[in-house]
Amino acid sequence: MTIDEAVRLIQPIDRQVAAKAQARLDGLTKPLGSLGRLEETAVQYAAITGEVKPNVPRGAVFTFAADHGVAREGVSAYPSEVTPQMVLNFLRGGAGVNVLARHTGVEVRVVDIGVAYDFGAVPGLIQKKVMQGTRNLRREPAMSRTEATQAVQVGIDLATEAAREGIGMIGTGEMGIGNTTPSAAIAAVMTGRPVADVTGRGTGIDEAGRVRKIQVIQEALDRHRPDRADALDVLAKVGGLEIAGLAGLILGAAVARVPVVLDGFIAGAAAVIAVGIQPLCRDYLIASHRSVERGHQVILDHLGLTALLDLDLRLGEGTGSCLGMGLVQASIKILTEMATFGEAGVSQRD
Amino acid sequence: MTIDEAVRLIQPIDRQVAAKAQARLDGLTKPLGSLGRLEETAVQYAAITGEVKPNVPRGAVFTFAADHGVAREGVSAYPSEVTPQMVLNFLRGGAGVNVLARHTGVEVRVVDIGVAYDFGAVPGLIQKKVMQGTRNLRREPAMSRTEATQAVQVGIDLATEAAREGIGMIGTGEMGIGNTTPSAAIAAVMTGRPVADVTGRGTGIDEAGRVRKIQVIQEALDRHRPDRADALDVLAKVGGLEIAGLAGLILGAAVARVPVVLDGFIAGAAAVIAVGIQPLCRDYLIASHRSVERGHQVILDHLGLTALLDLDLRLGEGTGSCLGMGLVQASIKILTEMATFGEAGVSQRD
Repeated sequence: MTIDEAVRLIQPIDRQVAAKAQARLDGLTKPLGSLGRLEETAVQYAAITGEVKPNVPRGAVFTFAADHGVAREGVSAYPSEVTPQMVLNFLRGGAGVNVLARHTGVEVRVVDIGVAYDFGAVPGLIQKKVMQGTRNLRREPAMSRTEATQAVQVGIDLATEAAREGIGMIGTGEMGIGNTTPSAAIAAVMTGRPVADVTGRGTGIDEAGRVRKIQVIQEALDRHRPDRADALDVLAKVGGLEIAGLAGLILGAAVARVPVVLDGFIAGAAAVIAVGIQPLCRDYLIASHRSVERGHQVILDHLGLTALLDLDLRLGEGTGSCLGMGLVQASIKILTEMATFGEAGVSQRD
Repeated sequence: MTIDEAVRLIQPIDRQVAAKAQARLDGLTKPLGSLGRLEETAVQYAAITGEVKPNVPRGAVFTFAADHGVAREGVSAYPSEVTPQMVLNFLRGGAGVNVLARHTGVEVRVVDIGVAYDFGAVPGLIQKKVMQGTRNLRREPAMSRTEATQAVQVGIDLATEAAREGIGMIGTGEMGIGNTTPSAAIAAVMTGRPVADVTGRGTGIDEAGRVRKIQVIQEALDRHRPDRADALDVLAKVGGLEIAGLAGLILGAAVARVPVVLDGFIAGAAAVIAVGIQPLCRDYLIASHRSVERGHQVILDHLGLTALLDLDLRLGEGTGSCLGMGLVQASIKILTEMATFGEAGVSQRD
C-alpha cells in the first residue's frame, strides 16, 4: 500500500458505534460518567474498531531505531553509539520498554529503520534500514523525499502486517540519539510556534546545550524552508527515519482500524506528520502520557489530544505507550465486563 | 493491636534503603530520572518495605461498605438501598472495582463495617458490622467515640492479618451512599478550609443539592464542634464507619510496613484521619488518582501527596486504587528487571 493509497483508504471512525458503546456504559452499575477518561477511551476504542463489545486486543509496541546526522552538532547528552547499543538491549529484553511491555502483556517489535551501524544477522531485529542515519539537517536536508517516503512505507507495511496477524492495538516507540532535535523542528514548522517553545533538554542537556539546539534547528528551518502544507516535505527536510516510520505506522494502523497509542514527544512529532498527510488519522490516536519534554504539550494541543498519564516520563522507547495500552485494556474491560443495573439488581438514581 | 499500640509501633520509612534504590535506578539503561514518577514510586516502595530489590507483591483492595444516617437529608443522588445492592454486586464480581482488580491482578476484599441491612450468611463477605449505619450527623454525632474506635480497630486488624498472609500492597476502597458528606466534613475540619471548598457533587447531585449538602455539613460542624487536634473526635462526630475502617487499615498497614494505595476523596478523608492520629503514616501512602470530586485536591495538598493518575474518576469502590496498584507493580519491575549500563554494554553520558 502506498502513502496515497493509505490516505484514500482511511475512513472516519464510527460515531454510531461510539453512541452504542456510550449507551452500554451508561447502563453499567456506576454513576453516569464516573469512570471519566476510561469511559472516553473505551468509546474511542469501540468507534475505531467498530465493535461495541470488543475483545481485549493483542498489542504490540513498535520501537523504530535510527540515527541522526545532526547528533554531531552536540544536541544530545549521549553519543550516537548508544542507538545500536540500546537496540541490542531491547532485543535482550533489558530496557525500560521491555519491562513495561511485559507488565502490560504486549509485544515489543524492534525495527532498524536507519541505525548507522551494521547489525549483521541479529535474531529478533526487524531489518528495514533505509539508510545509515539521516544527514545533518543543519547543513543539508535530513532525507530526500524518496528516502522519507520509503521510511513511511516501512511503517505502513509493518502496521498492515500486524493487523493481518491479529494485533488490535499498536504502540509507538523509538530510539535514536538526537531525535528530539528533528521532532522539535517538525513541531515548530507544523504548529507555527517559535523553535524555543518546542525545544527541550531531551535526554538531559544543559541550558547552554538547549540554546545550541535551538540555533541548529533555526538554521535548518531558515536554510531548507520546509513547506508546512506538505508534511512529507517537512519530514524529509528536518525529520528522521524513525519519525517517518512511526508516521507510516499510524497511517497503516488507521487504514486497518487499529488504535495507535502514542508515546511522548517524538511519537507526537510523527503523529503531527501523519495527521498532516491525512487529518482523519487523528481520531485513531490515543495519547498515553504527557512528557516533560518542552513542546510536547504544544504538540498535544495541535493534535487536540489529552494524555492519559502525566508521570514526568521522558525516556521514550515506547515506555509510555506500554502504560497507556494497559489503561486501554482496562477501559475495554470496563465496557465489556461490568454488570448492568438490571443484571445486578441495583437501583438507579432517585 | 489497639490504636495506641499501632501509633507507637509505626516507624519512619527507611531513607537509607531509599538512597540505595535510587542509586540502583541511576545505574539502569535510561537517562537519569527519565522514568519520573515511576522511579519515585519504586523508591518509596523500597523505603516502606526496606527492600532494595523487592518482589512484586500480592495486592488486595479492601472495600469497606457502610451506610450514613445523613443520607436521609437528600445529600446523594442514589437511595441508601444501593449500598447493600452494590455489596452483592462486588461479591458477584460485576462492579468496576472487580473488573479493575482482575485487570491488575489484585484481590477484592469486601467488608461490611456498617451497612444498614442484614446480609445473613453471604459467602465472601467479611462481616465486621459495628452498627447499622451511622446516625444522622446533622442532628447528632455520627458515632460515639467507642463506635468509631471499634471501626478503626476493624481496619487495623484486617491490615495486620493481610500482612501476615503475605499481602504486600493494600488498596483502599469504599461503598456507602452519602459518604462524600462525612468526607467533606472531615476535610473541612482537618484542613481548616471552608465547607464549600471541599464539598462536591458526589455521585451526581445538582447545584441545589450541593448547596443543601454544604448547609447540612455546616450545621453539623456548628452543632458538634469537632476538635481538629483530636482526629478520632472528628471521625466520630462527622465521619463514617467505612472511613474509620480505612483509617485503621492505613494504621495497620503502616505498622506492617505495607504501602497503602489510596483511592479518591473518601480514602483521602480517611488518610487525613490516619495522619491526624499518627503523622508518620503519610509516607506509607501512595495517591492513585486525583478525583474530580471538589475537595480532593485540598486533601492531597494537606497530605503532601501528588496523585499518579488524573483520569476524571469519581466512582470510588477502590477503582482508582486498582489502577494505581498497577503502576506500583510497574515501578517495582523497573527497579528490579531493567539492565544496568554495565550489564547491557551501553555507553553512559558524554
